[in-house]
Amino acid sequence: MDDGRKILVIIMDGLGDRAVKSLGHRTPLQCANKPNLDWFAANGTSGIMDIISPGVRPGSDTSHLALLGYDPFKVYTGRGPFEAAGVGLVGKAGDVAFRCNFATVDDRMNVTDRRAGRIKAPDTTELARALDGMRIGDVTAVVKEATEHRAVLMLQGPGLSPYVSDADPHALSAVQSSEPLRPEAALTAEAVNEFVRRSYEVLKDHPVNQRRIAEGLPPANALLPRGAGVFPDIQPFQEKYGMTASGVAGVSLIRGICRVCGLEVIEATGCTGGTDTDMEAKACAALRELERKDFVLMNVKATDIDSHDSDPRRKIESIERLDAMARTIRDNVPAGTVVALAADHCTPVEKGDHSGDPVPLTIYAEDGIRDGVTSYDEVSCARGALGRIRGVDLMPILIDKADRSVKFGA
Amino acid sequence: MDDGRKILVIIMDGLGDRAVKSLGHRTPLQCANKPNLDWFAANGTSGIMDIISPGVRPGSDTSHLALLGYDPFKVYTGRGPFEAAGVGLVGKAGDVAFRCNFATVDDRMNVTDRRAGRIKAPDTTELARALDGMRIGDVTAVVKEATEHRAVLMLQGPGLSPYVSDADPHALSAVQSSEPLRPEAALTAEAVNEFVRRSYEVLKDHPVNQRRIAEGLPPANALLPRGAGVFPDIQPFQEKYGMTASGVAGVSLIRGICRVCGLEVIEATGCTGGTDTDMEAKACAALRELERKDFVLMNVKATDIDSHDSDPRRKIESIERLDAMARTIRDNVPAGTVVALAADHCTPVEKGDHSGDPVPLTIYAEDGIRDGVTSYDEVSCARGALGRIRGVDLMPILIDKADRSVKFGA
Repeated sequence: MDDGRKILVIIMDGLGDRAVKSLGHRTPLQCANKPNLDWFAANGTSGIMDIISPGVRPGSDTSHLALLGYDPFKVYTGRGPFEAAGVGLVGKAGDVAFRCNFATVDDRMNVTDRRAGRIKAPDTTELARALDGMRIGDVTAVVKEATEHRAVLMLQGPGLSPYVSDADPHALSAVQSSEPLRPEAALTAEAVNEFVRRSYEVLKDHPVNQRRIAEGLPPANALLPRGAGVFPDIQPFQEKYGMTASGVAGVSLIRGICRVCGLEVIEATGCTGGTDTDMEAKACAALRELERKDFVLMNVKATDIDSHDSDPRRKIESIERLDAMARTIRDNVPAGTVVALAADHCTPVEKGDHSGDPVPLTIYAEDGIRDGVTSYDEVSCARGALGRIRGVDLMPILIDKADRSVKFGA
Repeated sequence: MDDGRKILVIIMDGLGDRAVKSLGHRTPLQCANKPNLDWFAANGTSGIMDIISPGVRPGSDTSHLALLGYDPFKVYTGRGPFEAAGVGLVGKAGDVAFRCNFATVDDRMNVTDRRAGRIKAPDTTELARALDGMRIGDVTAVVKEATEHRAVLMLQGPGLSPYVSDADPHALSAVQSSEPLRPEAALTAEAVNEFVRRSYEVLKDHPVNQRRIAEGLPPANALLPRGAGVFPDIQPFQEKYGMTASGVAGVSLIRGICRVCGLEVIEATGCTGGTDTDMEAKACAALRELERKDFVLMNVKATDIDSHDSDPRRKIESIERLDAMARTIRDNVPAGTVVALAADHCTPVEKGDHSGDPVPLTIYAEDGIRDGVTSYDEVSCARGALGRIRGVDLMPILIDKADRSVKFGA
């Protein structure tokens, strides 16, 4: 493989849209003032991209897998393992991850508060640490706190299966016995049940809970697993493409996708994954990573949030802030870098949710053909020289434009 | 699944064309005056569509399967079962259908008239009824008359196979013994031969034939099966998509495709499937169906017939009648409906037969992006924001535009 150019992929979350009535049947992208995004279009090659396939409505997890070149129909095993990875628990293929709640139960294991009085860190951090590393036969339980009252449980060991029912009753009733949903899952269900029993023993008299009870707060004396999912067998990014890679993202689920694929996930100060994201800080972090890595993916979330909130005006403002960020990229990206402007899916503001419409795509490279497209939007990009491609095709195209592709044949 | 908008797919049969010399190297669509078809293009999103895949020349059966979202390479088992369904015989997966002629044979089973003096209904109706329900071991023979001297035979029972040769000699010679073309077809071939033998016994002295002989007409004393085909294992449309659906079509084969896919087939008064089709009546029937169903497919045949007759001027006139029909649709379609204008294949007038060229496609939805295409024709649509898609992609795209798609991932 040649020692090629660097690659920067900028994912503007939920950016694509449909014709918005209040905007005169135009899209927010068509209405925004965005000279820098347009500069990339005017000096790049554009097209539209079906993230999964035409009409298929992606989640943010399946979309990022596809954009990183992994077929989600083969490697997507549900949300659980990617959420676990989002908080830092990256398992091996076959490990089983669960989303959990810290909850309050009475001495007959009836749930009295599903969120243990909305407990959060640092209490959850301490309680998770008390459970982390529990051995159940050949199985090890890895536990880590997540946002608010949530935590992640990962079971590691031979012969595990994700086909078990939830211990979490999803209601104020008795903790459920996890049952195998397939014969091969008997051992896993047993491990879950043993974990729940022993967690109660460990937690009920834990100093954190003694303090909470003294303060009149509900103790977090149970950890209730749900939504089992197995870690997929994913070829690490660096091995697959021969490139070192970083991901800059604020959203936990997307950080998890990056981690499971083997990208280093970067903290960018001021990047929270909300509309208050410091886009400039994220751009700077991405540019810093480009100095030391071959490939950087960055995800900026604001436009998706505006869309879920059905706020076309705020989406236009977010696009204009994205445009300022694009100026920073344009001015500071290392010479020769191949830059892709894309979205992970459309989130039409009138719909308030993801759609399966194709997203606009511009690929900028110094030697890329210029196709006469001068605006980065859903309609203009569709007239570009990239035509209509699929999400899993993006990585091979970028790798080739970066002069890193391997010749097939002689 | 969301409770989404309605979908209307208008298939203008054989509409697409090539550059016609006598039209100054333009296509009939480029020459026709069609302000209403163009209105849909101007207010919709356009593209071109390879019904099967680029360069593959579709039949009307494989094309409609693809347009309904069924991969014809997986579910198309030959014309027989779809023709049977066209006359109302919809079998279960594994049932075997044959196209048949009512014929005249002598007492040594030599064919003397392959069409029994071009017999037709009501004679064929009565004779079919005399054979219908015949039991041959575990096999039941279902028989129904079709157009003119034709009929359909459907064998139902365990262990049937379509791999048998024809009993019809396709010439004025001895009725053939049906032979198994694969070892597992021995039972089926035996059933066909027994059916042919016993049909002769039932038909030769049937009152209809006694009357025909008295009138000097050839008796229809044999029913000769050919073209065996097995009913495919097709997931019913409503189960596949969660939508109720109707098909409005005059052509028997297309009605059969609709029925096998589980669409309700609608009679539209005045709709014969010929050039005298009352297009307005068909449009009204489709609009009526849209009031009570989620999805309606309508097929209008005239342009295909003009093309097979190599009559470009008449094809232009048919397009202009289609345009009047499009006005009715435009003015009366329920608010929010997603409307697709498409063809099932091109039938170039100079060729007089189907071609594998892509067809023009416009998808209209109130919130669809407007791409600047202002004419519904082969060239203009190719510049539209849908780009180039495949027939099997149409349904997922329409379902997503109707806000009925399921999210893949989180």
